[in-house]
Amino acid sequence: MKSYRKELWFEVPTRRALLNITPTIVDCLRESGIREGLALVNAMHITASVFINDDEPGLHQDYDRWLEHLAPHEPTSQYLHNLTGEDNADAHMKRQIMGREVVVAITAGKLDFGPWEQIFYGEFDGRRRKRVLVKIIGE
Amino acid sequence: MKSYRKELWFEVPTRRALLNITPTIVDCLRESGIREGLALVNAMHITASVFINDDEPGLHQDYDRWLEHLAPHEPTSQYLHNLTGEDNADAHMKRQIMGREVVVAITAGKLDFGPWEQIFYGEFDGRRRKRVLVKIIGE
Amino acid sequence: MKSYRKELWFEVPTRRALLNITPTIVDCLRESGIREGLALVNAMHITASVFINDDEPGLHQDYDRWLEHLAPHEPTSQYLHNLTGEDNADAHMKRQIMGREVVVAITAGKLDFGPWEQIFYGEFDGRRRKRVLVKIIGE
Repeated sequence: MKSYRKELWFEVPTRRALLNITPTIVDCLRESGIREGLALVNAMHITASVFINDDEPGLHQDYDRWLEHLAPHEPTSQYLHNLTGEDNADAHMKRQIMGREVVVAITAGKLDFGPWEQIFYGEFDGRRRKRVLVKIIGE
Repeated sequence: MKSYRKELWFEVPTRRALLNITPTIVDCLRESGIREGLALVNAMHITASVFINDDEPGLHQDYDRWLEHLAPHEPTSQYLHNLTGEDNADAHMKRQIMGREVVVAITAGKLDFGPWEQIFYGEFDGRRRKRVLVKIIGE
Repeated sequence: MKSYRKELWFEVPTRRALLNITPTIVDCLRESGIREGLALVNAMHITASVFINDDEPGLHQDYDRWLEHLAPHEPTSQYLHNLTGEDNADAHMKRQIMGREVVVAITAGKLDFGPWEQIFYGEFDGRRRKRVLVKIIGE
């Protein structure tokens, strides 16, 4: 069994953003030399997500509005977590809906994807350096 | 390390439905010959889910109502994504709540499940052919 | 490839609670002797979650309120599932938002975590014995 590990660093200048990280994961896979196995890609921070969906800007705005509707940032006083001095409780909620991680099949040296699958980093509390972990195991 | 891959095809005649695919995954596992490892089962489309829950028809209707409440299909004009000519933005939301994938432990040649765990394909934008990927790695 | 399996048992005295199970998972990892690979930790019951987030009591109260807002327990008659004699339909919803499972990278014999990542068992229908499965594969 081979295993590969890499940390990806992001510093998103806004509070929230969705970044397509598929090309970077493809680079990791090539670097790993693994042709059959599983890739785990996860946010290492608890106010961010890694998820798979469509790279369509309208949809990304829809996600942002929808997440704000389900877990609004304001008023920040509605969350007990924010009594710790944080203002990011909503980001902890948004991340649960969008998910921490994806596991992707590796087949014949490629991400084994359907036609529209793309991997996104979902930032919900940006403006600082945060990490994503890529771990690939297989042969 | 052994690895096994199979695509399952579905054509759901309605917009939304939940299908119990556990027997098919059991067949895949038997075909793989793998006795210890992990199975990844994921939707290859971004308006569908694979998830684990209970095979109880009342609960499935509850899920449908609840998802419609959290991410309504109508009015379709409320979503920017639908300006692309699609009418399925809500399906992209529903899939995030229900999840893209499950990872299941394989122990002694079986899906290592609790008493009520069953694997479902969750279709939120049906009436066309769509795929699920089964990838099993182990020994 | 090595593989390790353990069942963890919980009996939460209240209907809902979040338990930090990270130390137990660390013990499992040590017991497994696996240094490179993947760990799957999943609820074996369909009214409970395993998820990764912050160990902050205010946040945990926020999660409870927020999940109650998105999928209220009362009135229990609003859910068809509860016609089966259960009163836990809401727990099946809450578990979908918080997720069934986490997959964690194992690197150099450790859980490969960011600074605040902790693993929780999320109970949404407690007051009885329920299980979590730990499966670790690697070398």
